[in-house]
Amino acid sequence: MINPLSLWNKTPTRQAILDFVVAVTDESGPSYVPPAERIATFDNDGTLWCEKPAYIQLFFGLQRLKEQAATNPALLAQPAYKAAAAGDLAYFDSLYPGNLTELMKLIFDTHAGMTQAEFEAQALAFLSEANHPRYGRPFKQLTYQPMIELIRYLEANEFKVFIATAGGMSFVRTVSEEIYGIPREQVIGSNVAYETRLTDAGPVLFRKPGLVDPISDGPGKPVNIELHIGRKPILAGGNADGDIHMLWYSQTSPYRSLQLLLRHDDSEREYAYDTGAEKVQQLAAVRNWQVISMQGDFLQVFPFK
Amino acid sequence: MINPLSLWNKTPTRQAILDFVVAVTDESGPSYVPPAERIATFDNDGTLWCEKPAYIQLFFGLQRLKEQAATNPALLAQPAYKAAAAGDLAYFDSLYPGNLTELMKLIFDTHAGMTQAEFEAQALAFLSEANHPRYGRPFKQLTYQPMIELIRYLEANEFKVFIATAGGMSFVRTVSEEIYGIPREQVIGSNVAYETRLTDAGPVLFRKPGLVDPISDGPGKPVNIELHIGRKPILAGGNADGDIHMLWYSQTSPYRSLQLLLRHDDSEREYAYDTGAEKVQQLAAVRNWQVISMQGDFLQVFPFK
Repeated sequence: MINPLSLWNKTPTRQAILDFVVAVTDESGPSYVPPAERIATFDNDGTLWCEKPAYIQLFFGLQRLKEQAATNPALLAQPAYKAAAAGDLAYFDSLYPGNLTELMKLIFDTHAGMTQAEFEAQALAFLSEANHPRYGRPFKQLTYQPMIELIRYLEANEFKVFIATAGGMSFVRTVSEEIYGIPREQVIGSNVAYETRLTDAGPVLFRKPGLVDPISDGPGKPVNIELHIGRKPILAGGNADGDIHMLWYSQTSPYRSLQLLLRHDDSEREYAYDTGAEKVQQLAAVRNWQVISMQGDFLQVFPFK
Repeated sequence: MINPLSLWNKTPTRQAILDFVVAVTDESGPSYVPPAERIATFDNDGTLWCEKPAYIQLFFGLQRLKEQAATNPALLAQPAYKAAAAGDLAYFDSLYPGNLTELMKLIFDTHAGMTQAEFEAQALAFLSEANHPRYGRPFKQLTYQPMIELIRYLEANEFKVFIATAGGMSFVRTVSEEIYGIPREQVIGSNVAYETRLTDAGPVLFRKPGLVDPISDGPGKPVNIELHIGRKPILAGGNADGDIHMLWYSQTSPYRSLQLLLRHDDSEREYAYDTGAEKVQQLAAVRNWQVISMQGDFLQVFPFK
């Protein structure tokens, strides 16, 4: 690549990434890593796409709760339906991080009993058609361009790049190829259970209620990485406390490794917040993880201006 | 490839495979399938390696039960330990297919509480050092060479090939690259749950007791294919009733698809048995699945003579 990471400012962070990739791909150097072991895993919400003012998948769930309440007004007696119908994000904010699992179960269950194909069609339509409240663009456009450029750079250096999201695996898969260039099978995340029903037309997959344990957050990230990859990543990227285990896990690799922590410090172009990232920021300093400053390191943020 | 499938006799089965691959890779033809959708899934036991006189992983479990009984003779009061110590395969035979899940739980639980790294070291040592009772060769050499040649042929035609075993995912992964040329992350199978423990040396993965539901057999195969791949295979290969759902699932693809059923009819070079494959053989006739005859289609079976 003539000009790798062209959407990054020429900072020490960018240089650290370049140095790492040069070192692990140098066959004659001491840090060489064989291509099969060049695994990179990136968190999604807040690492590859915007997670404010709320997780994108939460907006998707709210839309569904609202639809269900419109059909069956009796549901409005339940606080979640009432809040969704009123567009009351604060109610859902109050559920996490303390009750992330409960919140996810609520959202995931809005599609329980559906075929997987129906779910995917709804998710894709939502991501393509519903607009972000601040930017007025379809949610699927809320991607960080320098991070996508980094993924391409890694691929060009024979890395295999996975998304390890705490959000719904199959939600993200509906757009992963289109917006990130990452194949569906390289998206790991939290899951509902599926059930195969043998119909006259052959086996059909249905979504069951409930969440598969563990959710793909915190200690669940290495578990899901083992399940889907079976290797330790040598590069991991995240932005929140839920990424601590994944970042640290990659650092236990026998190979040279790199940990990237994206800090949201750009209220002008995106958002500025450290809430939910206090612990990982402390650990980053102690364990020498690279902190990416959105304001300082990103020349551009979104695909639109 | 100058001479694809050279280890196959020139039969209609071989021709059907060649015709299929030519059709789905012909960009100007009506059956063209884009490379990203060229997914193939193969069962492992009895499809890629020998499953007689018992599943290879059962031998591994027996070895472990025996070791545990040697350390703690009180365990011999339990029938499974007693049978393992006596090398009594018939006892375990009596548990499946009716109680495949129970048998698997028994075997998988022999490694519960271990780190995943320890488990893998033991599995690799077993597969590399323990010998098959009939062939006197390490178990990992019990692979069907024409099937491996088929995998290479598919890869050369931009297929992505996965193993979808009913057996233990991480057991097979320890040798998948060495014996099949299939990367670990492309091996799907039955699982135990893992747990991440944060130690002073960082996060470490441990194996928990019990089996993850569903096991990767019968209706569980499409479930695990959705979990790990998120696409329908256009080619699926199996040998037993537990492969029915996977084979049929691939046939519900919107693309042209091919289903391969390996029949064990070669008592001289391998084994001849239809038990446990009665239903899938009936369905193969009804649904036009290609039946591979080991005796008639394979020019060679194992890597050794």
